[in-house]
Amino acid sequence: MVSPLPTTNDGRVPVINKRYELLTLGDELLLGLTTNTHLSFLGAQLGRRGVLLQRNVTITDEADAIAKQFTESWRTADVVITTGGLGPTCDDRTREVIAQTLGQKLVFDPTVEKAIEELFTRLGRKMTPNNLKQAYRPERAEVLPNPNGTAPGLWIQQDGKVLVMLPGPPTEMQPMFLDQVVPRLAKLGLLLDREAYVQFRTAGVGESALETKLQSIFDQHGDALSVAFCAHQGQVDCRLSAPAGKLSYSQLEDIARDCARVLGEDLVCFGHDSMAKIVADLLRAEEKMLAVAETATGGLLAHAFTDIAGAGKFFAGGCVCYSNESKVLLLDVPECILEQHGAVSAENTVAMATGAAERMGADYALAVTGFTGCCGGTAENPLGTVFVALYSPLGVWSKRLCYPGPRAAVQARAVNAALDWLRRELLHARNGTSAPMRRTETA
Amino acid sequence: MVSPLPTTNDGRVPVINKRYELLTLGDELLLGLTTNTHLSFLGAQLGRRGVLLQRNVTITDEADAIAKQFTESWRTADVVITTGGLGPTCDDRTREVIAQTLGQKLVFDPTVEKAIEELFTRLGRKMTPNNLKQAYRPERAEVLPNPNGTAPGLWIQQDGKVLVMLPGPPTEMQPMFLDQVVPRLAKLGLLLDREAYVQFRTAGVGESALETKLQSIFDQHGDALSVAFCAHQGQVDCRLSAPAGKLSYSQLEDIARDCARVLGEDLVCFGHDSMAKIVADLLRAEEKMLAVAETATGGLLAHAFTDIAGAGKFFAGGCVCYSNESKVLLLDVPECILEQHGAVSAENTVAMATGAAERMGADYALAVTGFTGCCGGTAENPLGTVFVALYSPLGVWSKRLCYPGPRAAVQARAVNAALDWLRRELLHARNGTSAPMRRTETA
Repeated sequence: MVSPLPTTNDGRVPVINKRYELLTLGDELLLGLTTNTHLSFLGAQLGRRGVLLQRNVTITDEADAIAKQFTESWRTADVVITTGGLGPTCDDRTREVIAQTLGQKLVFDPTVEKAIEELFTRLGRKMTPNNLKQAYRPERAEVLPNPNGTAPGLWIQQDGKVLVMLPGPPTEMQPMFLDQVVPRLAKLGLLLDREAYVQFRTAGVGESALETKLQSIFDQHGDALSVAFCAHQGQVDCRLSAPAGKLSYSQLEDIARDCARVLGEDLVCFGHDSMAKIVADLLRAEEKMLAVAETATGGLLAHAFTDIAGAGKFFAGGCVCYSNESKVLLLDVPECILEQHGAVSAENTVAMATGAAERMGADYALAVTGFTGCCGGTAENPLGTVFVALYSPLGVWSKRLCYPGPRAAVQARAVNAALDWLRRELLHARNGTSAPMRRTETA
Repeated sequence: MVSPLPTTNDGRVPVINKRYELLTLGDELLLGLTTNTHLSFLGAQLGRRGVLLQRNVTITDEADAIAKQFTESWRTADVVITTGGLGPTCDDRTREVIAQTLGQKLVFDPTVEKAIEELFTRLGRKMTPNNLKQAYRPERAEVLPNPNGTAPGLWIQQDGKVLVMLPGPPTEMQPMFLDQVVPRLAKLGLLLDREAYVQFRTAGVGESALETKLQSIFDQHGDALSVAFCAHQGQVDCRLSAPAGKLSYSQLEDIARDCARVLGEDLVCFGHDSMAKIVADLLRAEEKMLAVAETATGGLLAHAFTDIAGAGKFFAGGCVCYSNESKVLLLDVPECILEQHGAVSAENTVAMATGAAERMGADYALAVTGFTGCCGGTAENPLGTVFVALYSPLGVWSKRLCYPGPRAAVQARAVNAALDWLRRELLHARNGTSAPMRRTETA
């Protein structure tokens, strides 16, 4: 149930004291054509298992650059991970250059040839001869099979170090790392075979208020317990660890449960689940349907749910109503409300939530309106003002919120605030209690 | 009108032969808590101005790591850009460490102090004393004012090289780079004062077919002209450059216009505009409103427009219809269509487009349905099948498309295909011609 995250943002050493370096290869990264998702994925995965990645270097596809950088990284690191440059075309030079640097010959591997041929047969495509380049491997390398593409990964142990070479496409690299590389590294003691920290997520409490609430629990464990906070978009994650090893993993889980009891409904979850996933699980468990309606968040609220597999089971749909006509025609918002109160108002937001629930046959509905852009806003409701409305079988309410920062930040916090309100309402519905904190600002 | 991009993916040298390195600082990048958008932004901006960024290194906030990496980068590079670590807290060490490495003392700058105080006054917040740390600068550094935050940037020329230190938040870093750093670098001849390549974007033609279509134009210029293609999500960008300097910028623009004449409506635009932006401009020019309805793309089609400033002028709204009930109640899809043909069908997609236009009072509508997930699909319509429908004042039509690859790729191509269809229809409406390529698969 409980899963953790390490952090060294507060200056503590990571649990596994080995130097990891990541080399991401490709001109497309340096020209900004592709975002470096390899760094965020691998950095997070290593971090959860007690390793702080020490350095990520992105270089061009040029052979000299690869040779120079790899030589330097191999000299100082314990583990080097590379991504990219393993494909069939002429700018895929990683395999050749690194084999040479390590003093290994390339040998043809018939097992890899067979796997590539089988993949082409399965896809009903004809294999061009340059694909066979991918069947060569450094002589003392182990092949990491690639069930999702043609370029296999490579695993090399040499000079008391480990080199892992992974293909560039994230859909191939990510499962290969989780399924094949993590167990091998754990077996060698180069990362933990479980997560390194116990994490729980909270909402509705600021970082310092959270610390104050939980301080008496933390104090019971003195130096044995280390606590780190990470705030993001109205949520704060709390991570518990035992740097000196004086508390076991299950003792950390017990402490997290003590914190949960103090936090009540401010606890979102143990582990890494998103707020949308938690709301989705509550809706599924109660067999209730949700509908959403939004203006200023422009589809982000709907997308928070449609990103979840099997969303059809609990999500009826969403409306992005930009024009007033669409609010009236799609969601039955009375024209007089728009005339009297405007689109960014408690009244309209409540009408949109009600309309969404009724017009999509849903049990619950959320609506979000606001001034999030670079312009708009009034003296009464300046830029950053957001209205959220919640429709439930028990009634419909609205809240007025105000967030600082650029547009994307305001949108993210508004979506999170809406989801959190629904989460609390669903908890009360499940437990048969009445929610104490509804702010009713409109009829 | 015309704006260009350089590329060295095809092995050509960049126009500006100077070595640029980017140092991105921060544990949050290495722990995967934040995506490295600095690399994609700065890499693309430099690329457009004739520079291929040679290396990006991400390191921890630790003083030793910063000193070691900066020393190495400063030795080999002509221009070093750093991001992050300039803030007021104790883990912001970049300024101190780099000043020391360069042998410069830190001096207190009263102008910076005043700017920080004014910003706090403007925001109505109280300034804590640690903010004054940001008023220290290396003695021979110039300050780059930060209108969007407290940490100013720094510009240092020393040892025949340039060091640019930028704050970490993208909303502060990006305008500072474009408004203050680019003109300074151009003045020193370290990047071009205009874009380096002439680019045009195309849709509906594959990379090799595009080359064949345009070959006779390219052939007229022999070695003087260099051509590079970049394919993404059903679009292909074409970039023209004159590596030996035998063609002027305006001659390259003339060649791009020759290509445009051959391409007809397959030309999307000159420069870097997105397909959604082009469609938005056409709708605005004709004073027409658009509505959208979608299932499998889960809000991405609506979000393509709501990301554009002033979308209310041309975008009525969108529906994300997951449940059949929402399709019937919101968009008047006849129940018998869903029973007979299913939700992923030409018939339902046409009904959704029609309903969207009528229920939101729009002139045009797009609808997208499909099997994009990890499951679903039928023998007739396997995974990757997408239906797009276009409603216009002249009628309503649908297309069946099929894309390989993971969910996000299928969704992106489906959205792009829908936008491109509307773009062509709007061109024909503007020119008073009839569109030749509508594929009508349903009544």
